[in-house]
Amino acid sequence: MSTPRQLSLNAFIYPSGHHEAAWRHPDSQPGRIYDVDYYQEIGRTAEAAKLDAVFFADGPALRTNVKHNAGSGLEPITLLTAIATATTHLGLIATASTTYYEPYNLARLFSTLDHISRGRAGWNIVTTGTDLAAANFGLDRHPDHAERYARAREFVDAVVALWDSWEDDAILLDLASGVYADPDKIHPIDFVGEHLSVRGPFNAPRTPQGYPVLVQAGASNEGRSFAGKYAEAIFTAHQRLEDAQRFYADIKAQARGFGRDPEHVKILPGISPFIGDTEAAAKRLEREFNELTVPEYGLSQLENIVGKSLHHLPLDEAVPVDLFDDAGDVTDNGRSRLQVVAGIVQRERPTVRGLLHRLAGARGHRVFAGTPEQVADTIEEWFRSGAADGFNVMPPYYPGGLQVFADTVVPILQQRGLFRTEYTGTTLRDHLGLPRPAGRTAPEPALTS
Amino acid sequence: MSTPRQLSLNAFIYPSGHHEAAWRHPDSQPGRIYDVDYYQEIGRTAEAAKLDAVFFADGPALRTNVKHNAGSGLEPITLLTAIATATTHLGLIATASTTYYEPYNLARLFSTLDHISRGRAGWNIVTTGTDLAAANFGLDRHPDHAERYARAREFVDAVVALWDSWEDDAILLDLASGVYADPDKIHPIDFVGEHLSVRGPFNAPRTPQGYPVLVQAGASNEGRSFAGKYAEAIFTAHQRLEDAQRFYADIKAQARGFGRDPEHVKILPGISPFIGDTEAAAKRLEREFNELTVPEYGLSQLENIVGKSLHHLPLDEAVPVDLFDDAGDVTDNGRSRLQVVAGIVQRERPTVRGLLHRLAGARGHRVFAGTPEQVADTIEEWFRSGAADGFNVMPPYYPGGLQVFADTVVPILQQRGLFRTEYTGTTLRDHLGLPRPAGRTAPEPALTS
Repeated sequence: MSTPRQLSLNAFIYPSGHHEAAWRHPDSQPGRIYDVDYYQEIGRTAEAAKLDAVFFADGPALRTNVKHNAGSGLEPITLLTAIATATTHLGLIATASTTYYEPYNLARLFSTLDHISRGRAGWNIVTTGTDLAAANFGLDRHPDHAERYARAREFVDAVVALWDSWEDDAILLDLASGVYADPDKIHPIDFVGEHLSVRGPFNAPRTPQGYPVLVQAGASNEGRSFAGKYAEAIFTAHQRLEDAQRFYADIKAQARGFGRDPEHVKILPGISPFIGDTEAAAKRLEREFNELTVPEYGLSQLENIVGKSLHHLPLDEAVPVDLFDDAGDVTDNGRSRLQVVAGIVQRERPTVRGLLHRLAGARGHRVFAGTPEQVADTIEEWFRSGAADGFNVMPPYYPGGLQVFADTVVPILQQRGLFRTEYTGTTLRDHLGLPRPAGRTAPEPALTS
Repeated sequence: MSTPRQLSLNAFIYPSGHHEAAWRHPDSQPGRIYDVDYYQEIGRTAEAAKLDAVFFADGPALRTNVKHNAGSGLEPITLLTAIATATTHLGLIATASTTYYEPYNLARLFSTLDHISRGRAGWNIVTTGTDLAAANFGLDRHPDHAERYARAREFVDAVVALWDSWEDDAILLDLASGVYADPDKIHPIDFVGEHLSVRGPFNAPRTPQGYPVLVQAGASNEGRSFAGKYAEAIFTAHQRLEDAQRFYADIKAQARGFGRDPEHVKILPGISPFIGDTEAAAKRLEREFNELTVPEYGLSQLENIVGKSLHHLPLDEAVPVDLFDDAGDVTDNGRSRLQVVAGIVQRERPTVRGLLHRLAGARGHRVFAGTPEQVADTIEEWFRSGAADGFNVMPPYYPGGLQVFADTVVPILQQRGLFRTEYTGTTLRDHLGLPRPAGRTAPEPALTS
């Protein structure tokens, strides 16, 4: 009997939790967010629950509103290396920018993480679209969306070519003759693009996975096309089943259009679960967190999304429905977030404070408050109805929010046969059901006539 | 009673050992050089011996002559993070290039290593001078020496300013008011140079050490001046006591000239010890390694140093004394290595094979074969005669070569009162006797009249 289709579940780590006020709640541990033990413990919790991977977002700039925002700013590849040494099976996915890294450097960091973790690395490819980041790299403004994606395509092509520049059997380790590696099986890549050029070859052999899993998160048209071509897993933000289904169908079709097996593109929406013994208890917990928010912080975050000043709006009156008609200077990669927010306002007609609470949970990702059964039900519904291959779980608070999910929701999904009870492989590709890329082989010798 | 002046001792890690043929010797383990456990074991050995630090060289290009060269190419910051989690006191020094990194990215990698290791990171600052590296970053030729050092100065200034951009008490963690950090204590750096510009602020607080220890290795005139201004530890390559003394005096004077305490610049020559129960046994061991060298490999390495073809030279005849008079296309940072080699030829008049054996040990660093007492004697002599504050120990083979040094030489140095028997601090700065940099404080408030 073959195994039925299985969910993929990641834990998306944000230091104190994804709820913006989590660090103020007694169940979080904000004093430990620069302590490596804290992240290793979270990794062990995720591995004990047999999750596919842990995941970190990233950007090379100080977060906005640091006054009220307890992010850590730690560099995720380094942090995941520390988690790698505390675990044996857990996948390790780091975000890194194609706009602000050099391909040779980034290829090395991820290759080394894959070697160190024995095949558990994944790269969440982002193009980073903020002027704050640009100013840290000598630019006045960040390059526009189209230019960033053009560079991103070249960047990924070059990095993959570097990772594949050694044939799998290039190392000979022939003690007798003194030949360590066969130079004929190590190839320059001679990549020449419009935005970057890399000669190669890479300076290390292929990794246990061939190369790290390619992950992507862009929801713009360019982002989708990029994802259809390159991504092996996609992190998405959808509030509603029907939107998620539409996205799912689109990406799978794009992958097919690129000649890829749609099974090899896993679509993983975010979900931020408040879990309680009863639905009322879960909603009470969510309210408790929302009441800890600082409206000034939420308003300025919302201003970043809509691109205009909102501080004049009375907190307890309804959000004007025309608020988004003349959205100001919206960054192009903010447009999909703007659509999410506009959708909430149109459907739910919240007060300003209500909208801030809706967004406080997980920055536009879906927040769900319910019992373990209800959380499992909605995961199963999306999984069975063509909306998701799994989920990027975004606990509202850490470490407890992940522990509760692991202790109460995971066992239900396991009982339903939807999620593994033991790892069946050792690499992130194994967990996701992705093949190890074949890599290059020597060209056929020319026929002699 | 105050502690007498203490040696600093690092273990410089090269995968199978510093001798170029180490990977062919039965005492090395070349099949494990992509296995993280191997490096964690080396780290634990170094820590058990109470060494100051382990250290990795690095460059963003495939090593030359990979056919006979068993380097690993693994990225050292990531690798040291894995060693950090297996140790508690050991310092962790990684080489990284100012020419081929962006300052914001590199500042983050080292800052995170310092946070994760609780204050044990060091950065060996190099400018990387090979065309092979340049071609991996879209350049036809590497920038020249002066231009690389000009960028390096700006780079280090910008990185240190980033590391210091948060005042030490910027994080308030005020749960009651919802204020995580005081934005008035987090400063943009607004660095505008000729080669790079970085606005800042950094996206993470100062590290346990304030910032990582700054290490440097350049021996050119520009390298020395750079070292005198910035370096807190310097790795050098000297064959003879008198050359090392001259260098030592020069650097200490340069540091004084920059208004620095010369005690805060530690000078650490490389030494690659073959250790035996008798001097004859040690020399036999060295010969055993030398006999495993592949002359074709050694010749091509030497050709890289002298910048011209040498394959016509008969191996068992004397090296022509005029060989270096018309050195060819020598890269400018190769000039100091060229001087080391020319000095050996003038003093020792070796055969070509003999010269290749002399260089096979540690790429121009000093190779010393003797008993544990003799190794301790030469270390003590250099330490007491103004030539060294300690040593960068380069075991000819790993892991055994480090183990033998730890088991036989370290106890002698400890008995002589020259080296710690227990760590007295927890950070790399503690081990090296370097102060934690003060960091910036808020400007005095303007006086109201």
